[in-house]
Amino acid sequence: MPSISTVRLALLTALAVIALPVRAADPPAKPLTMQDVLAAAKPADWRPLDADNTLYLDLDAGRVVIELAPAFAPKHAANIRTLVHQGYFDGLAILRAHDNYVVQWGDPDAGGEAKAKPLGKAQAHLPAEFSVPYDTSLAFTRLPDGDLYAPEVGFSNGFPAARDPATHETWLAHCYAAVGVGRDVDETSGSGSELYVVIGHAPRHLDRNVTVVGRVVQGIELLSSLPRGSGALGFYEKREQTTPIRRLHLAADVPAKERVPLEVLRTDTATFTALVETRRNRRDEWYKRPAGRIELCNVPIPVRQHPADAAK
Amino acid sequence: MPSISTVRLALLTALAVIALPVRAADPPAKPLTMQDVLAAAKPADWRPLDADNTLYLDLDAGRVVIELAPAFAPKHAANIRTLVHQGYFDGLAILRAHDNYVVQWGDPDAGGEAKAKPLGKAQAHLPAEFSVPYDTSLAFTRLPDGDLYAPEVGFSNGFPAARDPATHETWLAHCYAAVGVGRDVDETSGSGSELYVVIGHAPRHLDRNVTVVGRVVQGIELLSSLPRGSGALGFYEKREQTTPIRRLHLAADVPAKERVPLEVLRTDTATFTALVETRRNRRDEWYKRPAGRIELCNVPIPVRQHPADAAK
Repeated sequence: MPSISTVRLALLTALAVIALPVRAADPPAKPLTMQDVLAAAKPADWRPLDADNTLYLDLDAGRVVIELAPAFAPKHAANIRTLVHQGYFDGLAILRAHDNYVVQWGDPDAGGEAKAKPLGKAQAHLPAEFSVPYDTSLAFTRLPDGDLYAPEVGFSNGFPAARDPATHETWLAHCYAAVGVGRDVDETSGSGSELYVVIGHAPRHLDRNVTVVGRVVQGIELLSSLPRGSGALGFYEKREQTTPIRRLHLAADVPAKERVPLEVLRTDTATFTALVETRRNRRDEWYKRPAGRIELCNVPIPVRQHPADAAK
Repeated sequence: MPSISTVRLALLTALAVIALPVRAADPPAKPLTMQDVLAAAKPADWRPLDADNTLYLDLDAGRVVIELAPAFAPKHAANIRTLVHQGYFDGLAILRAHDNYVVQWGDPDAGGEAKAKPLGKAQAHLPAEFSVPYDTSLAFTRLPDGDLYAPEVGFSNGFPAARDPATHETWLAHCYAAVGVGRDVDETSGSGSELYVVIGHAPRHLDRNVTVVGRVVQGIELLSSLPRGSGALGFYEKREQTTPIRRLHLAADVPAKERVPLEVLRTDTATFTALVETRRNRRDEWYKRPAGRIELCNVPIPVRQHPADAAK
């Protein structure tokens, strides 16, 4: 097929990824784009993923990379590590794809006691970890734009987060790509053996009602493009409609050369602050009116392959 | 496969569709759910789709139903009608699926002058219809919860909308399912021959930068679950990756018995206000902490099949 022309393909210009050289000395300065900011980032602006807190969800279609957030959900992160070490998820399936909401995976036989896969050394129930105390040493870079659901929002080590000085809580926000712990009515009924990821408009009403345990940092399109389930709440009605999980393992358990050498832009840097401003007020010529504000879940958190590894 | 058990399938309870009878006389009253409110809705709370402003986008996988908003984009709606009458879109394709952003369709050959499909009687360029005047007779039911991007938000005849008394503008908001008009850098470069639909977290920074011409009211999952394009901005790189459009036609041009008899809940009714409250503060036992607020793009706008037709 001839390459799709840009002439009438709208929005192309709006989002064109053009890495212009930054020329500080030439007034009037051309407004920086996100790509300019990223091109000027220093190596120290990036942090590698911690292999002990990185999950690889391998499907036939490819790999989804998830970063765990033990600072917010230490018990759930530890229990998930225990499950993963046992190979608990290997051979289980994606059970639900609910449009504009979540994709969820676990054991299709979990309800049938006889056939349910044993949790082994993992806990079947854990105390809720809906929030952590506000007055902690936890990193928190505030986003000054405000929020409808929380008095303060920002980023904690690359995770969109919110906090409330009045209730002394900090919690992870349900933005696109957030990974949460399925539970039943009882708030201690979750264990991490059933997980979901947000694939639609941020369902922030779930904040502080579910334990958020991490975030998809790569490959979410393999989940968000799954056919939606036709059953109630997007559950698949037939087993053959589910997507098998080939393997879910911890990066630390994988030989180093098989790991994905990803880095996340540090959210406590001047580079990130500059990047947010390029998205708050888009000044390339396609945009006629910059928004002037940006919502927490509209802020991109850039991820890249480590340059040395990417060059290989 | 045995039906998936609810025991460990988390979030199931959270969203369970249980139509409890409303018993006003029994204190303490059980909090109403959205399903209670819908079950108690009167026939007059619903409005049928106007066949002259309803598009059927037919794919091999099924039908996507789009409601046009001529009150906000009269010239674009008229031009799209002209295109559709000519069969312009029939045989064209879905060209782009950009994760957490948009799905877009049009003529793959639009850039190559020789091969581009003629627009016939339709205009190739139209003035932008990014907003309409504030002080109009346009319906606008305010949502009192506030908004990050606009001083006032609410619903205009079933469309999420925003307005600004200071600039005297009202405009359609880029929520999930919004249908917009692709354009190039020039704000008059759109015509409606290339359209996109939002399939991710609301990109509200597009508000007042693009003409929003309608909303998908049914079948969006056929678009949102498409494989993402691997090219820049989610464009497909090979023609065989695109999804053919079998036909895009106006409901009014289809024999009555082939139409989809959909009704949309009127957003200027007490029923809708009650429904919003059930979503602002979820009070079923799964929720431990109601949000207390709701964001514009998190408000569902219920659509149903006309009961008499549904019973057939």
